[in-house]
Amino acid sequence: MTNFDDQMKKRVTEIRSIIEGYLPEAEGFQRTLLDALDYSMLVGGKKLRPLLMQQTYAMFGGTSGAIRPFMAAIEMIHTHSLIHDDLPALDNDEYRRGKKTTHVVYGEAMAILAGDALLNLAYETAAKAFSEDPGNPDVARAFEILTRKTGAYGMLGGQSVDVEYVGKPLTDEQLYFIYSMKTGALIEASMMVGAALAGASAQELEQVEAAARCIGMAFQIQDDILDVTGNQEDLGKPVNSDEKNQKTTWVSVHGLEQAREDVERYSREAVRLLRELPYENEFLDELILNLIHRTV
Amino acid sequence: MTNFDDQMKKRVTEIRSIIEGYLPEAEGFQRTLLDALDYSMLVGGKKLRPLLMQQTYAMFGGTSGAIRPFMAAIEMIHTHSLIHDDLPALDNDEYRRGKKTTHVVYGEAMAILAGDALLNLAYETAAKAFSEDPGNPDVARAFEILTRKTGAYGMLGGQSVDVEYVGKPLTDEQLYFIYSMKTGALIEASMMVGAALAGASAQELEQVEAAARCIGMAFQIQDDILDVTGNQEDLGKPVNSDEKNQKTTWVSVHGLEQAREDVERYSREAVRLLRELPYENEFLDELILNLIHRTV
Repeated sequence: MTNFDDQMKKRVTEIRSIIEGYLPEAEGFQRTLLDALDYSMLVGGKKLRPLLMQQTYAMFGGTSGAIRPFMAAIEMIHTHSLIHDDLPALDNDEYRRGKKTTHVVYGEAMAILAGDALLNLAYETAAKAFSEDPGNPDVARAFEILTRKTGAYGMLGGQSVDVEYVGKPLTDEQLYFIYSMKTGALIEASMMVGAALAGASAQELEQVEAAARCIGMAFQIQDDILDVTGNQEDLGKPVNSDEKNQKTTWVSVHGLEQAREDVERYSREAVRLLRELPYENEFLDELILNLIHRTV
Repeated sequence: MTNFDDQMKKRVTEIRSIIEGYLPEAEGFQRTLLDALDYSMLVGGKKLRPLLMQQTYAMFGGTSGAIRPFMAAIEMIHTHSLIHDDLPALDNDEYRRGKKTTHVVYGEAMAILAGDALLNLAYETAAKAFSEDPGNPDVARAFEILTRKTGAYGMLGGQSVDVEYVGKPLTDEQLYFIYSMKTGALIEASMMVGAALAGASAQELEQVEAAARCIGMAFQIQDDILDVTGNQEDLGKPVNSDEKNQKTTWVSVHGLEQAREDVERYSREAVRLLRELPYENEFLDELILNLIHRTV
């Protein structure tokens, strides 16, 4: 195992433990809801968003604990979106990360409410940063970014267009919009929250946003590629789901070869943009470039 | 029209305009999502929660504009819960406030996302109070109450138990839990946020919470009564929906007569608790007592 893999493993373990610290105990009459919430949060995943947040925060010299509630919050928002995305009315997916999806285990109604409760818990958790660091305007700035990038002008806006155009042709502009919003927005939020909390300037935030958008594009295109070339065992979910769901994807429009080139191009562009900043984080660069060849 | 009705009408108009000021323009690729969001927010309703918030804030001597984003936020959270509650997987209701429900007009997937986007917008909106009044610890206190009372230990927890026990018998303790959470929690949030933002002490907050819980119980029991005795034209939704949905209600357990007595008893208890505080708001008292005889 390389040094990078070692560091990666250590950091993901640390992130898991931070997140678990913000999850509620499953007790009381609403035990089933809390069980569903824990089930969804604890089934694994790469923890990419909290990791990108933490590493961007470190790159900008951030050292306080105020980043922790935001790290947990971004993973909760991501998991919320997966639970609702998997619902029968949306992608109707039965497997995720090698386990049955939340609605398959707990029923549709409970999955809708568990998704809601996770989105709510995300903001309940992130808001703890206000009490931990009262009067720090960077916390308000980070919170604003997190809500904006999640909402109708961010991730949820992207998902809505994705859903609306199932089975219909998409223009290149619409496809880029969907990718940069449904996947890019949360990755932008991750890195921008990290930068904002560490006191980045407005101009630096814009640079981070541009880099993060490239990572989001690369990440979503790689997802499309894996949906065609990957296997269910590695991915923990069925392949060819885009075809099943009649989704227009980067691969269906541009072909596999071009899609692979674009993943590499977007990833290298992200690193280039970050290197223009007067800060450095080698691990972050390596993390971004490693995503080019990810198989899960 | 009495003086109270005049005041009521004026205040509801004012609240509508405050809320509209925080709604996004429906433009961009995600226009349908934003349309669905506006449709759900603008179909009417009593605006009871922002009104209770505003009046409790006034009772505790609050005068700043920081209450406005919270007033909009509580109505967004309430509307979010209605959209998801009406979904086929939950109550499967086709009419609400005299109009078709969001999923009937926009489809199930869009209704799920619109509900998500509204919950998100609620916190995006409430968080504006942090920038408007930086470093004020009462804003953080109000925000904490709002998230807690909405989440798994508040409204969403109550809804989950409500959903889980459809068609099954409930103990009195469970029925009280469901009512105090699914309906009570947001009314508690409304009044407690108002009090907290105006600088109420921890002890005063507890007293407000107890009063609000009584209002929530009275409100939900009156809902049950109207579902049996009301008519579709006044209510703007079909009657006998509890029977249809195999719900155990206060009326089905205690009978109509007892339910009516309980509405009056809980309402009077709420006013009594508020009158124990060294502040006064006659309009608020009258508002609470008027809810006893509401027909919509």
